[in-house]
Amino acid sequence: MNLNAKAIVLFGHGARDARWREPFDRLAALWQAQHPQTRVELAFLELMQPSLAEAIASLADSGASKIVVVPVFFGQGGHLRNDFPVLLDACKQQFPDVALSATPAVGEDEAVLQAIVDFSARAL
Amino acid sequence: MNLNAKAIVLFGHGARDARWREPFDRLAALWQAQHPQTRVELAFLELMQPSLAEAIASLADSGASKIVVVPVFFGQGGHLRNDFPVLLDACKQQFPDVALSATPAVGEDEAVLQAIVDFSARAL
Repeated sequence: MNLNAKAIVLFGHGARDARWREPFDRLAALWQAQHPQTRVELAFLELMQPSLAEAIASLADSGASKIVVVPVFFGQGGHLRNDFPVLLDACKQQFPDVALSATPAVGEDEAVLQAIVDFSARAL
Repeated sequence: MNLNAKAIVLFGHGARDARWREPFDRLAALWQAQHPQTRVELAFLELMQPSLAEAIASLADSGASKIVVVPVFFGQGGHLRNDFPVLLDACKQQFPDVALSATPAVGEDEAVLQAIVDFSARAL
């Protein structure tokens, strides 16, 4: 199987409790099962490894030349408006041969919100 | 239109930047448009209002007697494993006439994760 030159980073906040990352691990596994040719790495803003730069280095080392970072955050507050652009710019400088871009936070996506509404409705 | 005795609280972390709550406002609006008979309130753990107790008081005042709290978090770390149960127990004591329960975090839901995978795939 030829691996795609495109890859994806699922970027989360991180937390002290290791169990916090379980949905992120499931998310990466789900991605990989459905998109086996497109590499995926998790990365975290703080408190968990790898960092964004480490995840990008790992993907670039294995041949990815176009990497899209998906912020797995609901809201776009200080972390995504201030910290993340600085991190992303630093990575662009560190990896000039990689085409690096980012999506809005997943909480901006209507289908993600709809899935939360549906989950809530099933709980009632 | 008769309002349902059941109501829902969408419970998020909160943040300093007011724009962080935009997806939560959209989530509540989406719920209300699709479930007009079932009241919804947002509530936040910290940095934003209303608190969980304030949201429950407001729903109880307007006649809700069964309230389901949906934690709009991805991971279940310290906030959901430690802080949230304490808050929820305090609310159960404060509102003995309300049947109060909570779902797992929305990040535990496979359909929510799938929506994130689909969003990511569209971005590639």
